[in-house]
Amino acid sequence: MISVAEALDGVLSLVKPLGTETVPLSQAAGRVLAAPACATRDQPPFASSAMDGYAVRDADLQPGAALCVIGESAAGARSDAIVNAGEAVRIFTGAPVPGGADRILIQEDCTRQGDTITVGQNLDPSTYIRPAGGDFRTGDTLDAPRPIGAAEVSLLASMNVARVTVRKRPEVALIATGDELVMPGEVPGPDQIVSSNNLGLAALVIANGGIARGLPIAADTEAALLQTFDFARGADLIITLGGASVGDRDLVRKVAQDAGLNQSFYKVAMRPGKPLMAGKLHGAAMIGLPGNPVSALVCGHVFVLPALRKMLGLPPQTPLQEAPLSCDIVPNGPRTHYMRARLENGTVTPLERQDSSLLSVMAQANCLVVRQPYEPNREVGEPMHYLAL
Amino acid sequence: MISVAEALDGVLSLVKPLGTETVPLSQAAGRVLAAPACATRDQPPFASSAMDGYAVRDADLQPGAALCVIGESAAGARSDAIVNAGEAVRIFTGAPVPGGADRILIQEDCTRQGDTITVGQNLDPSTYIRPAGGDFRTGDTLDAPRPIGAAEVSLLASMNVARVTVRKRPEVALIATGDELVMPGEVPGPDQIVSSNNLGLAALVIANGGIARGLPIAADTEAALLQTFDFARGADLIITLGGASVGDRDLVRKVAQDAGLNQSFYKVAMRPGKPLMAGKLHGAAMIGLPGNPVSALVCGHVFVLPALRKMLGLPPQTPLQEAPLSCDIVPNGPRTHYMRARLENGTVTPLERQDSSLLSVMAQANCLVVRQPYEPNREVGEPMHYLAL
Repeated sequence: MISVAEALDGVLSLVKPLGTETVPLSQAAGRVLAAPACATRDQPPFASSAMDGYAVRDADLQPGAALCVIGESAAGARSDAIVNAGEAVRIFTGAPVPGGADRILIQEDCTRQGDTITVGQNLDPSTYIRPAGGDFRTGDTLDAPRPIGAAEVSLLASMNVARVTVRKRPEVALIATGDELVMPGEVPGPDQIVSSNNLGLAALVIANGGIARGLPIAADTEAALLQTFDFARGADLIITLGGASVGDRDLVRKVAQDAGLNQSFYKVAMRPGKPLMAGKLHGAAMIGLPGNPVSALVCGHVFVLPALRKMLGLPPQTPLQEAPLSCDIVPNGPRTHYMRARLENGTVTPLERQDSSLLSVMAQANCLVVRQPYEPNREVGEPMHYLAL
Repeated sequence: MISVAEALDGVLSLVKPLGTETVPLSQAAGRVLAAPACATRDQPPFASSAMDGYAVRDADLQPGAALCVIGESAAGARSDAIVNAGEAVRIFTGAPVPGGADRILIQEDCTRQGDTITVGQNLDPSTYIRPAGGDFRTGDTLDAPRPIGAAEVSLLASMNVARVTVRKRPEVALIATGDELVMPGEVPGPDQIVSSNNLGLAALVIANGGIARGLPIAADTEAALLQTFDFARGADLIITLGGASVGDRDLVRKVAQDAGLNQSFYKVAMRPGKPLMAGKLHGAAMIGLPGNPVSALVCGHVFVLPALRKMLGLPPQTPLQEAPLSCDIVPNGPRTHYMRARLENGTVTPLERQDSSLLSVMAQANCLVVRQPYEPNREVGEPMHYLAL
């Protein structure tokens, strides 16, 4: 058995950042920027007003002074007038500041009658002029790699980047194995249960930027498994679920090896998730996840998501967070333990039942408290590392 | 001007939870469960083995004892044998425990020769039997409302819930206004800029469970705006961007009123985002967001996302989080200030430039530090509330 850190290194050595593709900006949210995006213009493209008011000469702003309004500059329609001494140009937020003006007198600070404005008392001292290029200049870049969220979309739009180079989405083939499994909506026989891991892992993959290719459930025969591995060709990552333990019916490793698997490890000192394997098959990374549904989801968070992030060109590992315990907990055994837990009001509480078959408990958890091998008992208030779910 | 809290109450009073629809479980991830989902079976449906090994009688487990293997129980293919004294049934993880057996002897704890196993020394004391219904029983529910993530999908599958009742996605019509705007990819005129708010808000809406209906940019004429409001009919929420300030060209409020707007408020004591308005138009909620791109995104987080969550049947407000400052900051003015900031290594650092036009700064931020009106200066180490972006 190897440690979680060694296993993660092993998994990550099987994948590399995928190629890139270009998508319209309207489709870019949720993708990962793969190459720096370059502004094709200055923003603002001209000195512009930050407020509604009058473009004036700062030297003219004596309280009570009268200024003559000689034009109007609106967003999208500038004034060609030049502001000379004693003059003002009506201006709106975002509009180009006319020549000669070096300050915006906000409209709350003056009164207007006809074409004359009178400067008020107690003027707001700000100039309210946004300099040209104050946000960014032509050639400035939004650096990659980075996930593209709403702020990045707005910024890229403003830079007039209409098409964006993003990392391809990793395609993940998901193979549930076992004679005992039927799909949701089917009627299970008396010895059967409903397959849950393949749908749960698909949801995890999709929520983290991948494409899930759900394959038919593979029966516990060598022929069925071999056929299903064939269906997985072309995927970037092949995930099997179950069938990788030490039972006589656990055929996944044998059949994968027959199909050409280059195994990098088998068995990890973790709980849940011990019977984890990984290797290279058909040119793709392969991860054999345990069949216990909670083990599969935990290993999904601990190994599959870092692999996806690496394929997406992102830093694979996200640092663990830390919060104090709300209760005492007993010493840990020889394996790294990922305890299903609740993070609430700033403290973490491991849930009472930690058996790896209990999906009802997993669905209550919002984090996994991570305990190192042989960690001693921990007391209320001690800080614990956790992985947010 | 009203407070942020009053404005949020006003916005939330304009929306209510939408209706529900039924989707296949494979499409349910990312949606919000709208009605409790009910297990149609016990899980496990039978007492099952948690390990690979032998189903035995606990009373027989004397170190060195020999037991006769009389059958095999696999996942999906149970043994009909009854385990009597001195007998064992080969069993695999997840398989039904045969009658008569009350413990699983894990295979690491015995040796086998032919049909005889010999019990080892230092036995693992666990029974390794998962009782029928230990995860959930027929009629147990997954309660609503709750967002459906990977663990919920796995649990619903395991409950054999093949179709799920979810809240409809709120449809949000987005109207950017202003003669100065062109779409990304177009060539802006000398007085023009590229529209960014509509795409950024669309990304925010989609990432938070809504559907974005992007409408054409509305020119600064009453006819164009009126036409665009017509295009927005049928949406659950109409969002305008820009044109809601006090300038002569800020026609949104006037035209919306002509179109039948029932205005609930205008102007909020916040920074950025003061010229915010909301009301009811065409039977939909309408929120008029400011045109400054950072203001629009900040108001999107502060007002639009709570409105979406309420429409999705979720608690509208998420509690602010808290982290200590990494630097001193000056007193706040009369409005609630949402400072663009970085949360790193557990401390928050407001970014240097806070002008509401700077998208490059917004894209650097990963949180907004929230400062109350007239809050005094704050020093390094003081805890500050923040809203994660």
